[in-house]
Amino acid sequence: IKKSWNDLQELAGRAWEMGHSDPRKVIFATKMGLALSIVSFLIFWKQSYHDISQYSIWAILTVIVMFEYTIGATFIKGFNRGLGTFCAGILAFFFSELTLLAGQWEEVVIVISIFITGFFASYLKLYPSMKPYEYGFRVFILTYCILMVAGNRTRGYLEAIVTRLVLIAVGAGVCLVINIFIYPIWSGEDLHHLVVKNFKGLAASLEACVNGYLKGIEYETVPSTLLTCQAADDPLYSGYRSVVDSARQEDTLLGFAVWEPPHGRYKMFNYPWKNYVKVSGALRHCAFTVMALHGCILSEIQAPAERRQVFRNELQMVGAAGAKVLLELGRKVERMEKLGPGDVLREVHEAAEQLQKKIDKRSYILVNSESWEIGRRPKTIECLEDLLDKDKESVQLGFKSLSESVLDLSSLPVETPLKNGGSKDIFRKQIAWPLRHPFNGDAVAEEDEYNTYESASAMSLGTFVSLVIEFVARLQNVVDTFEELSEKADFEEPFVNVPTT
Amino acid sequence: IKKSWNDLQELAGRAWEMGHSDPRKVIFATKMGLALSIVSFLIFWKQSYHDISQYSIWAILTVIVMFEYTIGATFIKGFNRGLGTFCAGILAFFFSELTLLAGQWEEVVIVISIFITGFFASYLKLYPSMKPYEYGFRVFILTYCILMVAGNRTRGYLEAIVTRLVLIAVGAGVCLVINIFIYPIWSGEDLHHLVVKNFKGLAASLEACVNGYLKGIEYETVPSTLLTCQAADDPLYSGYRSVVDSARQEDTLLGFAVWEPPHGRYKMFNYPWKNYVKVSGALRHCAFTVMALHGCILSEIQAPAERRQVFRNELQMVGAAGAKVLLELGRKVERMEKLGPGDVLREVHEAAEQLQKKIDKRSYILVNSESWEIGRRPKTIECLEDLLDKDKESVQLGFKSLSESVLDLSSLPVETPLKNGGSKDIFRKQIAWPLRHPFNGDAVAEEDEYNTYESASAMSLGTFVSLVIEFVARLQNVVDTFEELSEKADFEEPFVNVPTT
Repeated sequence: IKKSWNDLQELAGRAWEMGHSDPRKVIFATKMGLALSIVSFLIFWKQSYHDISQYSIWAILTVIVMFEYTIGATFIKGFNRGLGTFCAGILAFFFSELTLLAGQWEEVVIVISIFITGFFASYLKLYPSMKPYEYGFRVFILTYCILMVAGNRTRGYLEAIVTRLVLIAVGAGVCLVINIFIYPIWSGEDLHHLVVKNFKGLAASLEACVNGYLKGIEYETVPSTLLTCQAADDPLYSGYRSVVDSARQEDTLLGFAVWEPPHGRYKMFNYPWKNYVKVSGALRHCAFTVMALHGCILSEIQAPAERRQVFRNELQMVGAAGAKVLLELGRKVERMEKLGPGDVLREVHEAAEQLQKKIDKRSYILVNSESWEIGRRPKTIECLEDLLDKDKESVQLGFKSLSESVLDLSSLPVETPLKNGGSKDIFRKQIAWPLRHPFNGDAVAEEDEYNTYESASAMSLGTFVSLVIEFVARLQNVVDTFEELSEKADFEEPFVNVPTT
Repeated sequence: IKKSWNDLQELAGRAWEMGHSDPRKVIFATKMGLALSIVSFLIFWKQSYHDISQYSIWAILTVIVMFEYTIGATFIKGFNRGLGTFCAGILAFFFSELTLLAGQWEEVVIVISIFITGFFASYLKLYPSMKPYEYGFRVFILTYCILMVAGNRTRGYLEAIVTRLVLIAVGAGVCLVINIFIYPIWSGEDLHHLVVKNFKGLAASLEACVNGYLKGIEYETVPSTLLTCQAADDPLYSGYRSVVDSARQEDTLLGFAVWEPPHGRYKMFNYPWKNYVKVSGALRHCAFTVMALHGCILSEIQAPAERRQVFRNELQMVGAAGAKVLLELGRKVERMEKLGPGDVLREVHEAAEQLQKKIDKRSYILVNSESWEIGRRPKTIECLEDLLDKDKESVQLGFKSLSESVLDLSSLPVETPLKNGGSKDIFRKQIAWPLRHPFNGDAVAEEDEYNTYESASAMSLGTFVSLVIEFVARLQNVVDTFEELSEKADFEEPFVNVPTT
């Protein structure tokens, strides 16, 4: 008993915390309680009519079913309920006339009509484009059955139909009034916030990815949740994952938002909610590159840390500029402002260009020339060291030249060729790299293998850089969709200081 | 009127087609009709008791709400309904005793109790881990309210509670019997098929991607649906998209499948449905690389076609072997067989190794040495031509050496440097490549720019190759999760011929 008491306390604690972090949930629950009480109150009031209290179930049922978290969802449910009930009422009216004509076969006619109605409604609701109206079909069958059975019992088909429709209308009215006029919760607003959150999450993920790659963060064992695409605590991962995963949620919110009347900051009929989803889609397209960048970090083949340092400044600049663009766009969406007169992408494009130029000049770092059939390149070693000096990076490690390391390998193949932190991993990873034919002890073959690995490892840096540049290219599309949104949704002109041209 | 008649005909035609392509939908609708008729029939039968027919709504409501497409979903709904009703019944019993004590304040107590119940149930159902029981909370509130109101009207709280519970049990019984014993539709089976379908889709996408890249397919204008991650007709895209998108659907099916009793080929308690989702997750992890490969095809920066041809054979081999592994695994999952004694990944690993070695030897193709600070590499041109000859590829195009092209550029910067199909695109794309600083007419600067582009374009081939290799590395994880599944689900040993070692 004591244990379950503790459990209960814990549950209460967590429930309290939920209310604390999102007060809208408390408000929703209060509104729901209020709507129910009002409906049940109405029933008592009219006790003199006797009959109405018996049908009170209809108003209560309507409230329970229609009262959804957001206003858009309430409207959809209400529409479905109204339409379903209305159609069922009409159909029931015609069939009830038929049953009265059928005489002693009345009950057979009723059962058959219920079978037919149930069959068609269940069948049609499986049609893909009917999905949003699934609930309407359910209400349709329910109402039809109940009207037939109840009408049959009391013989008052028409009265049964009308009373129910009126009570449903009362319930729906109470729902709408309470949901709209007491602290409304709008789907559109949720969608807006979701898009903004996606921008921020992706920006954080991008920067974490680039910095993590440069710092050479390693996963000792890659968590299996990452490998099977499940949720994980990794902050780098959760940022882009929520962008990638929010597609379904956005569609749901969009479905609700289009039903909502103009409100608050969205004072426009036919507000372009669709464009928010489009912006988020373009953002998702970017997120897939960030995901691929993360894939480079998770990969078994890793570029040595020194080589990464060569592009350190440029990569960091692109990462920071890209994140800045995302944050800027996110802020613009949040404040509903248009883009300023300057080109928001200029900085990130310049950074990408710098990176591209550096690669152009030093792409030999991205390949391993040891085994070129066309002859080895000259003077690589001194240059690689020169470069690191020139870049004035703080990477003055116990750095061994590549040719030496190759010599080492032919004699002592297990010796780590590069003595800094990254090198250990090369070998740990090399074991994991699936070369299946057995080592034959021949030093030449091993050198061959080592070179092959070395080359793959150098190329992985190239891949990372390419993906970063691809990310920048995809940003253009995000900006385009944002501009379309800001036009259609009539965002405000930004507050511009004196232009500085 | 004629138009709406045509519309109706079209609708009927499409509905007929849906039934034709998936007869299970027709069967489901028939079962639903049958269940409803039976329940409504039961009501007539007992018309002598009068009271029961009045409460018939409960059995009908139960059938309409519980009767879901698959058996697992029906079980969950039934469980929720049963638990919700039961709890509400107990609570209503205690509160009814309380209201009877309250005397003239009875109605106030009822309304307050409804408010409190509504508040707590609405609040707790918003707690994330309560999501699957959302429906149960709804039923709870509904039942509680109705019992209170109805009991108050007739003063027979206990009778009201018991009658309703019995009728709900009858409805639930009819649902379960009909749904399980007449042509059952299992969620588990759907999940199984979905996983198999994902394997096939991804295999098709992978091969299409690799072949498309080698053939140099181009998107004249990239469809905006791709850029915003929406559904599109592109067969290459739809294959991996369904893998990437099916996560939510798998979770839903998993949620239903775990409720289903052992059946058909899945004769085991606690059948490891979770592992199917895990295999699919690992597959999704692979799918993201295919997505990145597709990104290379969509990208603005493209590697020239001749360079792609250098790796043609190896890339095709890896693509074909990878697709073969996926298809093989998909077939194993479909037939529920364990892996054979051989290593299913051997072929694809060998192919990847070949590719890797080729890259190692010819990685100079992946970079542009024109602007290296450490001196240009020797003899590139003859070698590149030699290579193409050596590979006996059919790419004997009007091929101009790189050094010539550079010379051309310094004098005539707009001349296409490579005369085959790929070269046009380079320039078309180059315009799109966002280098913003103005062309200053200086030939040297332009050559510089051209080289930068050239280098990015060459690197994009390297990225493609790296991603293919990364894909192969990720396959290991799919095989591992498959083996875990095949152990836990006790798949059959494959039918092995005489082993050929």
